[in-house]
Amino acid sequence: MINEANIIAYLKKEFPQQIGDDAAVIAPSGTKQCVITQDVLVENVHFRRRYQSAASLAHKALHVNLSDLAAMGAKPAYILLGLSTPNIDADYIHEFIAAFSHACHRAEVILIGGDTTRASTELFLSITAIGYAEAIHLKYRHTAKPTDIICVAGELGAAHLGFTALEHDREEFNHYKHLFLNPTARTSEGLWLGAQPGVTAMMDLSDGLLTDLEKLAAASHSQAILNLDMLSHTSMFVATCHELKQDPIETQLIGGEDYGLLFTINAHEYSDIASRFATHFKYPLQKIGTITKGHGVQLVQHGLPVHLNISPFSHF
Amino acid sequence: MINEANIIAYLKKEFPQQIGDDAAVIAPSGTKQCVITQDVLVENVHFRRRYQSAASLAHKALHVNLSDLAAMGAKPAYILLGLSTPNIDADYIHEFIAAFSHACHRAEVILIGGDTTRASTELFLSITAIGYAEAIHLKYRHTAKPTDIICVAGELGAAHLGFTALEHDREEFNHYKHLFLNPTARTSEGLWLGAQPGVTAMMDLSDGLLTDLEKLAAASHSQAILNLDMLSHTSMFVATCHELKQDPIETQLIGGEDYGLLFTINAHEYSDIASRFATHFKYPLQKIGTITKGHGVQLVQHGLPVHLNISPFSHF
Repeated sequence: MINEANIIAYLKKEFPQQIGDDAAVIAPSGTKQCVITQDVLVENVHFRRRYQSAASLAHKALHVNLSDLAAMGAKPAYILLGLSTPNIDADYIHEFIAAFSHACHRAEVILIGGDTTRASTELFLSITAIGYAEAIHLKYRHTAKPTDIICVAGELGAAHLGFTALEHDREEFNHYKHLFLNPTARTSEGLWLGAQPGVTAMMDLSDGLLTDLEKLAAASHSQAILNLDMLSHTSMFVATCHELKQDPIETQLIGGEDYGLLFTINAHEYSDIASRFATHFKYPLQKIGTITKGHGVQLVQHGLPVHLNISPFSHF
Repeated sequence: MINEANIIAYLKKEFPQQIGDDAAVIAPSGTKQCVITQDVLVENVHFRRRYQSAASLAHKALHVNLSDLAAMGAKPAYILLGLSTPNIDADYIHEFIAAFSHACHRAEVILIGGDTTRASTELFLSITAIGYAEAIHLKYRHTAKPTDIICVAGELGAAHLGFTALEHDREEFNHYKHLFLNPTARTSEGLWLGAQPGVTAMMDLSDGLLTDLEKLAAASHSQAILNLDMLSHTSMFVATCHELKQDPIETQLIGGEDYGLLFTINAHEYSDIASRFATHFKYPLQKIGTITKGHGVQLVQHGLPVHLNISPFSHF
């Protein structure tokens, strides 16, 4: 068991210069825009302590926030951590704080504040992340235009396979379990894509491709044509889907928590950007469709519109 | 009952321009410093829905954060709201969001983002507040110096009386109940005190005078002499203490959640600042002691050191 004073003392030890006043002060950033995001993670809604170690929870809690900054093309700089703990063992909290400190250090972000409270039954995390970007490098969801190419950076549906294996207490599948438990924000890709004028819109993939693409299309007052023939999957992915009784296409469409990037590229600049992306990051971006006039997401297979009867991803 | 999509839809209605991308963008602030704070409020730890209306909860959740900015001498500008709701009735959530919108409008702050999630049993609120101040106007806890005068703006112990009346289901005492349920950040006072070079250190009163003064003394590597003879109380306060079986001095020392301001003033400038404060705000600041060399808080009564055997305030 651990109390608030112990937690604060341990936080002060891990983050010696950061905790003190009623609020944190950050210096003006010259001409750069300040980019701010907040994500909340609730036990038994977003994670289970049964299979999520304190260390992986700390990593994930940080990176789901960094992923939001990456999606805007912003470089992360500062973090605030809200930590509400029920009576759980002190080791879990100590491990969480140590891992959070390590993850902040690796991501080159500084913890500048937060709040520590009790909770009655569930562990509750609330993280605010602050980053910077030049205004000209910022990317939004509402700026995709008809004829733009829709692209993804990241492995679609992989986290959902890990989630499924963990929920069903399946052994093996460690590759996918790891991707679900320890997603890493694509910060470098976000910054690189932010600096490309040909990238017209961007967001991160957290709720599943279909749901997220619907949001991008709606924000841009356009329709997204999603070409199912363009979704690539490895033989390992297909085999794992088979073993876990999941449909590969459906898993790629609705699987949440991949924390890849979903973005659109002006058609004239697509080849150049795709080529330079692959050279720079040693993996290819995936072209999956095009933006057109209209609204919503239209799935296309073998050149024809298709309708799949599937429900969007939801947490536990 | 209400689901996440309903809540987001209602938030979009109340805050039409603020919700969309993965993160919010705020423009650079010229030479001003950016000041950031985060507070978490957990049901049955910081509030009870039994006697805290959704409207008063919204007001309080905002103002405990604005109070942190006031304590730094910063002007509030932006808010992020994290809202995790168990299956509670939709009216409570609608009333909360409407009142939060109203409170933001009155405080001249803009909601720029946040997160909405489910929770299993308790309502969780996590608010991040962002403000600005010129570097020269920022106040900290670590800058009090020996011979400085210790002062308070606000009614000490008043919120604790309201809390006690509410916890014991006592009727009447509405004045004090209101102060506990609807504290208002002393933003104007914080900005005004921030602009006075003679104010040497400042923080807000959230955990009780004794606990907060210990923090200020520790941060400043000094001792605080707290003169109990200087604590003033109205006859209504004393009568209410009597009815609620509370000791007036003890209530003023340990009662939390007053959200007044605790600050120190250079002795040479005390008279001038106290006089101008009273003229400007139509109520006096209270002088309650002095800073000296040493550490901790020393209570003094009738010119002699005293030791009181009391426990610090804690939530439910």
